[in-house]
Amino acid sequence: MPGVLETSVTTEIPGPLSKASAKKLDAVFDARAVHFVVDYDKSNGNYIVDVDGNKFLDVYSQIASIPVGYNNPATIAAAQSPEMISALVNRPAIGNFPSSKWGEILENGLLKVAPTGLDKIFTAQSGSEANELAYKASFMLYRRKERGEGVEWSNEEIQSCLNNAKPGSPDLAVLSFANSFHGRGFGSLSTTRSKAVHKLDIPSFNWPQAPFPTRKYPLEKYEAENDAEEKRCLQAVEDLITSWHCPVAALIVEPIQSEGGDNHASPAFFQGLQDLTKKHGVVMIVDEVQTGFGATGKFWGHAHWNLTSPPDIVTFSKKAQTAGYFFGDRALIPDKAYRQFNTWIGDPARVIMSKAVIQEILAKDLVAQCARVGDVLYAEMEKLAQKYPDHVQNLRGKGQGTYIAFDTTDAAALVKNMKALGVLTGTCGVQTVRLRPMLIFEEQHVPTLIAAFEKVLGAL
Amino acid sequence: MPGVLETSVTTEIPGPLSKASAKKLDAVFDARAVHFVVDYDKSNGNYIVDVDGNKFLDVYSQIASIPVGYNNPATIAAAQSPEMISALVNRPAIGNFPSSKWGEILENGLLKVAPTGLDKIFTAQSGSEANELAYKASFMLYRRKERGEGVEWSNEEIQSCLNNAKPGSPDLAVLSFANSFHGRGFGSLSTTRSKAVHKLDIPSFNWPQAPFPTRKYPLEKYEAENDAEEKRCLQAVEDLITSWHCPVAALIVEPIQSEGGDNHASPAFFQGLQDLTKKHGVVMIVDEVQTGFGATGKFWGHAHWNLTSPPDIVTFSKKAQTAGYFFGDRALIPDKAYRQFNTWIGDPARVIMSKAVIQEILAKDLVAQCARVGDVLYAEMEKLAQKYPDHVQNLRGKGQGTYIAFDTTDAAALVKNMKALGVLTGTCGVQTVRLRPMLIFEEQHVPTLIAAFEKVLGAL
Repeated sequence: MPGVLETSVTTEIPGPLSKASAKKLDAVFDARAVHFVVDYDKSNGNYIVDVDGNKFLDVYSQIASIPVGYNNPATIAAAQSPEMISALVNRPAIGNFPSSKWGEILENGLLKVAPTGLDKIFTAQSGSEANELAYKASFMLYRRKERGEGVEWSNEEIQSCLNNAKPGSPDLAVLSFANSFHGRGFGSLSTTRSKAVHKLDIPSFNWPQAPFPTRKYPLEKYEAENDAEEKRCLQAVEDLITSWHCPVAALIVEPIQSEGGDNHASPAFFQGLQDLTKKHGVVMIVDEVQTGFGATGKFWGHAHWNLTSPPDIVTFSKKAQTAGYFFGDRALIPDKAYRQFNTWIGDPARVIMSKAVIQEILAKDLVAQCARVGDVLYAEMEKLAQKYPDHVQNLRGKGQGTYIAFDTTDAAALVKNMKALGVLTGTCGVQTVRLRPMLIFEEQHVPTLIAAFEKVLGAL
Repeated sequence: MPGVLETSVTTEIPGPLSKASAKKLDAVFDARAVHFVVDYDKSNGNYIVDVDGNKFLDVYSQIASIPVGYNNPATIAAAQSPEMISALVNRPAIGNFPSSKWGEILENGLLKVAPTGLDKIFTAQSGSEANELAYKASFMLYRRKERGEGVEWSNEEIQSCLNNAKPGSPDLAVLSFANSFHGRGFGSLSTTRSKAVHKLDIPSFNWPQAPFPTRKYPLEKYEAENDAEEKRCLQAVEDLITSWHCPVAALIVEPIQSEGGDNHASPAFFQGLQDLTKKHGVVMIVDEVQTGFGATGKFWGHAHWNLTSPPDIVTFSKKAQTAGYFFGDRALIPDKAYRQFNTWIGDPARVIMSKAVIQEILAKDLVAQCARVGDVLYAEMEKLAQKYPDHVQNLRGKGQGTYIAFDTTDAAALVKNMKALGVLTGTCGVQTVRLRPMLIFEEQHVPTLIAAFEKVLGAL
């Protein structure tokens, strides 16, 4: 048995038992993307154990979605609670028949961490769904303003929308950025621009794509260039809003483009974006599906921007273990009931898990810990970047908690070699390695990660 | 305390405590559609109890989604099981890191009830998502056939899809029927045709809408007319497939149009549809989100059709307590990994609940029970139809388990009056009352429902 902080890899990865298990699964369930098959009972904290008994330090966290560690005792207690059992066995249509406990669950959970200025919520089941619900809220608001407050729907609108025709089904757009990822539904995928594998062969809406700043590193050296690049992108956003073939009702942006390659921009860029949305009456949606819940060293990624007023909508999922969107302005609630609606409207069982996660984060001050550990980790990564300048390029994430990434020549191979040494990391974009540890990643885990990087990079 | 089979209403509905609770909730969560606020701890079996202590016989079942009753002991046992606790606290990215138990959970759960001929599954979180995943599978298959098996994507395809442009983002369509409901995502909503409240102001794809047969009742009297009507609709489907501005890659149909008004068609109509899909190379998707899991007296609604071969894809949700699609042909699995993919790919916690529900249904033979009780209920409803011909019209659902509905002059008022007598029913379409009891609805519950109908109808 390896020690608490030790990893242990005794087979090739995936090991023979993982391979056999995945092969069996593949007969009924597409298993081609399986990295390995997991023994979750043996996994603990930052460590994941596969069915072959290999033990990994998990710095990828189920695609950035495990918040407070495997088999965390506080989440186990929530899973065993009477309110959880009731939520599981009596799954309500929350919009029609909410539980008497629903308000309290929201209040002591998700609303406790609502972004400043946003005190209302709509719950969902995935980041993709959350984003689409935000788009729908934006479209309904746009048309309501256009129609005039209190003006009833016309018969022509009512009839035409059933036939997917104008004026009931209007041409309205959501602007998104090159290399963004916002999900895989037909609306969210129309705003996703990261990889062809996500989009190819799927019909999409003719919505505008703005350039996202391509920064040069190190930042100190390229201040003027990066500033000019951000101004260029802001101008392109405004040009698209004012010239697109149909009105742009909303704009969606990630605080850090994650799936698309861990691309950062400055607070000034995001403030500029907000200024444009206010100027042109566009709803500003901040997609915090991956950046939310503390990993950037602040609870919300957009808290780094010091915006002059809150964004209109903030969406979340992943580490929240559930999904949905926060908002402030009541005008984003449609004029009639049942317009923003579905049978389940999220899952109270997962919202209860979210409450446990939030209470654990707050009780243990894990966001501050992430900021602190992130600084330590970044300093170590900087040393690697200096030592291996050909293989650790464009290091980014300084002052952004553990949300750290770098470019390299063969990201997939690097991640594979790290795995063989018992450390799970992830790729993103086309040449990027991303670190996505859990919020319980501590100083004591840094040496294992750095030693593995040293070994892999040293052998290149 | 009312007896086990008794209902009890002592306040107006919603009662004062429900009203106060919903009002408080509405400050943070749109509560305009709340019927009443529920005390799920006091609810049991077929009976739901609100926070004012009113007890209702629930013949609506959370919009047709509670399968085996409130606080069912078998589902409580599943909720308390170690595998559930692990699934709740260690939520995996199933596609990358499945649990060693995942295969077994599917095998002894959802796959046990897979429609004949469909032995593979993709899991999801809602009916809407399940349908969109089915559309994506259909589009990818269509383009793969067009491109030629094994032909690699062109650089032009790869680049253009990121810009939502052809050829990478092709014009392809899903055909659906007038009055259908398939969900509220941007793709599923483009196939939903039931009500303006769902669709108005939301951009949609220009996809074809075929007429669904409008049957005349009683069926014995209008055999020739109904037959001609179905032939007319089949011809319209073929005309749309062959004349639409872009290829129709898939067709989606509900065995009984539920949200759209409980509209039925004959087995011959559905066989005719399948013949058309085979003739024109269109994927046939059967949306069993509401009809699946036994409520029609067979496990799957399409089992009533005696098709000559299985449908290509069957989607499910609601009573399954989770969602996804079944399929048989491996060609519906895209040519590369990560094309049909997302972080969570469903929720194992809900799939474990599904397994418990399925085992309860099979152990207690609840589908046969539903067929038997449905016949009793239908006979009683027929008596009401004879006694109140002006208010119970076009009674339908004979031989379809408890999936029974009728048209009336003011469906909303009727449902409201039933509620005041302690019986929850639902509306659908524009003038229809639908019955959606759970699978544990028995002969002994029929008199309460019928007595309430008698009282309400007698007073009209």
